[in-house]
Amino acid sequence: MLIVKKFGGTSVGNSERIQNVAKRIAAEYKKGNDVVVVLSAMGKMTDVLIDQAKELNPNPPKREMDMLFTIGEQQSVALMAMALDAIGIPAISLNAFQVPMETTKVYGNARLKKIGTERIRHELESKKVVIVTGFQGVNKYEDYTTLGRGGSDTTAVALAAALHADACEIYTDVDGVYTADPRIVKNARKLEEITYDEMLDLATLGAGVLHNRSVEMAKKYGVPLVVRSSLNESEGTVLKEETTVERMLISGVALDKNVARISVMGLKDEPGIAFKLFDCLAKANINVDVILQSIGRDGTKDITFTVAKDEADNAVKTIHANKARITLQDITVNKHVNKISIVGAGMMSNPGVAAKMFEALYNVGVNINMISTSEIRVTVIVDEGKAEKAMNAVHDAFALGE
Amino acid sequence: MLIVKKFGGTSVGNSERIQNVAKRIAAEYKKGNDVVVVLSAMGKMTDVLIDQAKELNPNPPKREMDMLFTIGEQQSVALMAMALDAIGIPAISLNAFQVPMETTKVYGNARLKKIGTERIRHELESKKVVIVTGFQGVNKYEDYTTLGRGGSDTTAVALAAALHADACEIYTDVDGVYTADPRIVKNARKLEEITYDEMLDLATLGAGVLHNRSVEMAKKYGVPLVVRSSLNESEGTVLKEETTVERMLISGVALDKNVARISVMGLKDEPGIAFKLFDCLAKANINVDVILQSIGRDGTKDITFTVAKDEADNAVKTIHANKARITLQDITVNKHVNKISIVGAGMMSNPGVAAKMFEALYNVGVNINMISTSEIRVTVIVDEGKAEKAMNAVHDAFALGE
Repeated sequence: MLIVKKFGGTSVGNSERIQNVAKRIAAEYKKGNDVVVVLSAMGKMTDVLIDQAKELNPNPPKREMDMLFTIGEQQSVALMAMALDAIGIPAISLNAFQVPMETTKVYGNARLKKIGTERIRHELESKKVVIVTGFQGVNKYEDYTTLGRGGSDTTAVALAAALHADACEIYTDVDGVYTADPRIVKNARKLEEITYDEMLDLATLGAGVLHNRSVEMAKKYGVPLVVRSSLNESEGTVLKEETTVERMLISGVALDKNVARISVMGLKDEPGIAFKLFDCLAKANINVDVILQSIGRDGTKDITFTVAKDEADNAVKTIHANKARITLQDITVNKHVNKISIVGAGMMSNPGVAAKMFEALYNVGVNINMISTSEIRVTVIVDEGKAEKAMNAVHDAFALGE
Repeated sequence: MLIVKKFGGTSVGNSERIQNVAKRIAAEYKKGNDVVVVLSAMGKMTDVLIDQAKELNPNPPKREMDMLFTIGEQQSVALMAMALDAIGIPAISLNAFQVPMETTKVYGNARLKKIGTERIRHELESKKVVIVTGFQGVNKYEDYTTLGRGGSDTTAVALAAALHADACEIYTDVDGVYTADPRIVKNARKLEEITYDEMLDLATLGAGVLHNRSVEMAKKYGVPLVVRSSLNESEGTVLKEETTVERMLISGVALDKNVARISVMGLKDEPGIAFKLFDCLAKANINVDVILQSIGRDGTKDITFTVAKDEADNAVKTIHANKARITLQDITVNKHVNKISIVGAGMMSNPGVAAKMFEALYNVGVNINMISTSEIRVTVIVDEGKAEKAMNAVHDAFALGE
């Protein structure tokens, strides 16, 4: 078996933790498996590097930031190879130049294009554990790039795909994917399995265990992904195209607090007005999430949508700047809303899931601001003070804790 | 003009120092010159990395140590590029993969084989200051290597040679090359010029301003080398094939305290005995310096030689282990000796230089243990307590302070 294991910055944050991870790797190696390990930079390293950079330049060139950042993972992989050597496991560390990990050219947020497998295969054949720097790549100019948020997960999944690995294990500080955030919902339960699509919706909606880029890639290449804890031996959650356990109606309830609702009122009721509104936001690089359109007074219409909280002011400014083109009457902003979503591949064949959610919210007196649905998801916007109560009510209604 | 400037770890030890170096680089750039900068790792970085490694593995694999060490220079060059950007100077950092810097395969002590100049030339043409990682290279396995002691100086000289630079400036914490160590000899004087050969002998003999590998390379490729201070604007010392100032009889007096004297007595007086002795030392990787052979008693002979102090015990052990082959009667070790040398291309055409040195030592009552000479050098071994007195006497005898 060929297994790719990814450990994050916390898991390699100091010598003791590196040694613990080394022991886990050794155990896998001793089973006779080929092991490829992907590591992030040590816990605080990235912050240290950012501080060093900012001391010299408040706005450092992105190309040089990537040149600086990439030393973090190289440090982790070299130290891990030494820790493995110390317990008698042959290992070799490789950086993005050595693999190589080819990416698009953009610094700070590149995408993987092609992964060379020759060197890794060669090292695996000589019975070495291969330890690869996550998060980093090399672009066509032969410059270092970094992959942006969740980058090391993406590296691991891409490597697993390129090497046709039998499994890709993402080690985090949680046990796996839960039916809801256990800090909010007491009886939240760890899922044994979940589909890529469900996970994608959960990731997008704020469950935050895996970055959606890595899940998208796992889905695209059919990489069998496992999310598990680096702190204990618990089994974790398996991500697949189709779950093999009996399908539950819904898999989980996700909460996203980073939401603001913007209502644009009194828009002219004529073709192209929605296009004009969202075009100006897109040009300002503002991501719009849930959108609702309703009939306003006197032949006008209102459009309400949500954006990330820290983009709300910018969105309002952008719309005002385009007032002449958009012809609106008023804008209101509400930063005190949360987004709650239920996700489940099972709901495609089960009508009434949305109604059941709304009923649960009604029963505990939670007012729904906005509703948005997809094939495997129902999302509602509620007042932020009601979010926890709403989460628990929905979790109970679908008996997710049982 | 194309100028290569090398700054050591102390010169880039913190943000303030990096900014100071950036200002010096900016001044050169603003003269309209092409500037290539070679940097070492920040002052304490290497020690930090060694500590991290030793915590995990008391005897870390050399390949992985190089993988770890090389992040040090990459950090320096990225930060320097940011510091230059902050003061409006376009700059780009390059590591050993990007240049590329091809080396022999040995980890921890590789030699440069070939330097690619295409990328550097391209960046210089687009009017950027190019900042290159010193000390590191890439071998034929596409693995990082490091160049060993004095490695960054060697990188700078090799780059200057490959780029046919008009000058190669090595910035250190001293003003240049002195007639003697100013801490020992009060009236030691900075030399304006010195020949490569003289510098080679001085470097080998413990003057320690430049590592001899870099001087050898400068001589081989005729690279005009300047040693100067990173702390002030003083002119420094120029290294050349032939000095243009009127040649002095000798250029300097060097002291080497890292010396132990070993005497092997009662060797059979037959052909091949010296070969057998030094062959076993060479096989144990022990460097032998001054060698003296004398007639012993009863048709035997004695051989006395010097080694570095920390290799003395190993040398004695090695000889004992080869006793059967070498047929000796006794070994004595003296770790309390120092080596004093005078160096000067001028002495080739001036007989009596050695005699003058011996006279100076006799005048202050310093006994000479061993003598060794080359065309441009006279070396004596003296008791370590007498070294300072001897240095000053010789320095005065040749009027080096005037």
